[in-house]
Amino acid sequence: MLELSAVPGLPEIRPGDDLAALLSQAAEFSPTDVVAIAHKVISKAEGRIVRLADVVPGPRALELAAEHAKDPRLLEVILSESAEVVRADAGRLICRTRHGFVCANAGVDASNATEPDTLVLLPLDPDASARGLRAALPGRPAVIVTDSFGRAWRQGQCEIAIGIAGLTPLQDWRGLPDIAGREMHATVIAIADEAAAAADLVRAKDSREPAVRIRGLGRHVTAEDGPGVAALVRRAEDDLFR
Amino acid sequence: MLELSAVPGLPEIRPGDDLAALLSQAAEFSPTDVVAIAHKVISKAEGRIVRLADVVPGPRALELAAEHAKDPRLLEVILSESAEVVRADAGRLICRTRHGFVCANAGVDASNATEPDTLVLLPLDPDASARGLRAALPGRPAVIVTDSFGRAWRQGQCEIAIGIAGLTPLQDWRGLPDIAGREMHATVIAIADEAAAAADLVRAKDSREPAVRIRGLGRHVTAEDGPGVAALVRRAEDDLFR
Repeated sequence: MLELSAVPGLPEIRPGDDLAALLSQAAEFSPTDVVAIAHKVISKAEGRIVRLADVVPGPRALELAAEHAKDPRLLEVILSESAEVVRADAGRLICRTRHGFVCANAGVDASNATEPDTLVLLPLDPDASARGLRAALPGRPAVIVTDSFGRAWRQGQCEIAIGIAGLTPLQDWRGLPDIAGREMHATVIAIADEAAAAADLVRAKDSREPAVRIRGLGRHVTAEDGPGVAALVRRAEDDLFR
Repeated sequence: MLELSAVPGLPEIRPGDDLAALLSQAAEFSPTDVVAIAHKVISKAEGRIVRLADVVPGPRALELAAEHAKDPRLLEVILSESAEVVRADAGRLICRTRHGFVCANAGVDASNATEPDTLVLLPLDPDASARGLRAALPGRPAVIVTDSFGRAWRQGQCEIAIGIAGLTPLQDWRGLPDIAGREMHATVIAIADEAAAAADLVRAKDSREPAVRIRGLGRHVTAEDGPGVAALVRRAEDDLFR
């Protein structure tokens, strides 16, 4: 049995806000809970915000802006957040971020910022953000920081985990016998990504509900914070689709 | 609030079994529920099973078998289920199925078959399977048929929807104003895939729990069965990563 509920009544988050305090005022957490928190509030609390007016586009940004009819200042920020531009096509920029995530616009977001003409970036170190939040929350639940990523062959986006503390990222069933004793179908399940997706379903539309409490995943919660999201990121060398 | 519970006590499914009858004996469903059902039981009930002993590998299967150290009969079946082999590398065969799904081994599964040396294929028409089940279930819940797919840039697999009846596949928030009035971050959410992922978290390990009832997604349930999974499949022409 799984129960998911959005944490109600969080205010607009601003740089320097104490997220743990705000969350613990709004809900109770236990050690077997998982809290899924949308990365944007982490980024805002951590001041990962850029004003377009402060950005000076470099030559590559100017070049890409002309090709793709996009604001060169936005492109400059996207490039600065990227290790690599994986695809640039018809206005879509798919990038590999410094963390190793492959996503549109390197996760740079111009929507839902507190002020117009500001951009919200991904947290610098989402695993560290997850660990910090876990340590500060009464009840010490597991914490996953989430974002919506597109998929190579599917329409639409799903929430996945970009930072993890205390939740097993992957459940590996390989080697366990099945009825016939054979295991052809890969059976490594991305638990943390499934949890992120599940949490997203609970949120309201124009959401002031960035945090969702998940009850029922206690068997995947660990006392240690664990390896974090690196366990879920495919290394560039293993990427068949660069 | 979302509540997910596995439907208990289903027997091993065999060709010709009446899945709707078995499900309705085990649980009650209402029109605002979503039932997520692992494709394997659909395939077994529909007789989508192949005995390796009955397969004669063709020349392409024999060629690939030598390159990839795999059983040529298995490869023959994978090829017959595929419209295209997208990548063949180091033992991994990523294929586009007839339905348009991009996944390992075209979804052909040698694990968890009732007898050894048999393969379970994807349902011929998972949307039709979903619609049929929805029509036959008392309470007429929405139905999604699910499978675990790998991801291009992430380790591990997540359950996604391969057949849909009565659940909005995608929720499109584009055009809705945010605080700043701008929408840069694509906001088309793959509801059906997130529901499939959520359901997977409830299942037990060596599972006789292929069906999960989801309560709390009523706002995404539609009276009509809807467009089905085609809404979620990116067309080959839009695929940046062929």
